[in-house]
Amino acid sequence: MSCQGPVCTNLGLKPGQRLTVKGIIAPNAKSFVMNLGKDSTHLGLHFNPRFDAHGDVNLIVCNSKKMEEWGTEQRETVFPFQKGAPIEITFSINPSDLTVHLPGHQFSFPNRLGLSVFDYFDTHGDFTLRSVSWE
Amino acid sequence: MSCQGPVCTNLGLKPGQRLTVKGIIAPNAKSFVMNLGKDSTHLGLHFNPRFDAHGDVNLIVCNSKKMEEWGTEQRETVFPFQKGAPIEITFSINPSDLTVHLPGHQFSFPNRLGLSVFDYFDTHGDFTLRSVSWE
Repeated sequence: MSCQGPVCTNLGLKPGQRLTVKGIIAPNAKSFVMNLGKDSTHLGLHFNPRFDAHGDVNLIVCNSKKMEEWGTEQRETVFPFQKGAPIEITFSINPSDLTVHLPGHQFSFPNRLGLSVFDYFDTHGDFTLRSVSWE
Repeated sequence: MSCQGPVCTNLGLKPGQRLTVKGIIAPNAKSFVMNLGKDSTHLGLHFNPRFDAHGDVNLIVCNSKKMEEWGTEQRETVFPFQKGAPIEITFSINPSDLTVHLPGHQFSFPNRLGLSVFDYFDTHGDFTLRSVSWE
């Protein structure tokens, strides 16, 4: 899974703010990723829906990464995604965690790196990013 | 005018595609900038509305930049901006120029650098970026 999508930096997202992402999942999607953090090597949230990848089927895997070191995976079984369909996902920044808002479901992921500002966002894999908005 | 806003890279915008930018102009705005190009040192379009800056009042100044070298300024007198108001601007990528769509007015600016892909976008100055979308 390569296909690096757009990268946003210097976002300045603080607790109380949120990022809304819209795009289209590829018709033959295996997996796609959205990363949120300080920069590409300090990821507060690596968000990875897997249709069929790394032995996982229809599962969301989340993790954090500091330099080359991954944290412990958090797995979500609710999988509200369809291949070839548009999707809107909102990430809310809270003081100690992030809330991930999906169609009909939300969950939270701890701010393990203790980031006070989320400046970095990128996507890659079987997903075409169409818009990014924050407030 | 410092206040660097978000930066987007790897956008992959080609002729036929367009970028729509939404945000809010500061109440005491003097000037703001949007840059579109290959990277921060190869700007196909430096778009700079000036309320009151560099001796210009209510004037849009556009230019191109290659490494440290600026091109010739193109000045637009139609100035559909209000301090403190939201704004939506669309940049259409064409083979030989860009069309800038403003409220009630549009103009074009030549693709002087001959860029086949516009990967880079940033904003700075008296403007708060809220969303970026492309299609």
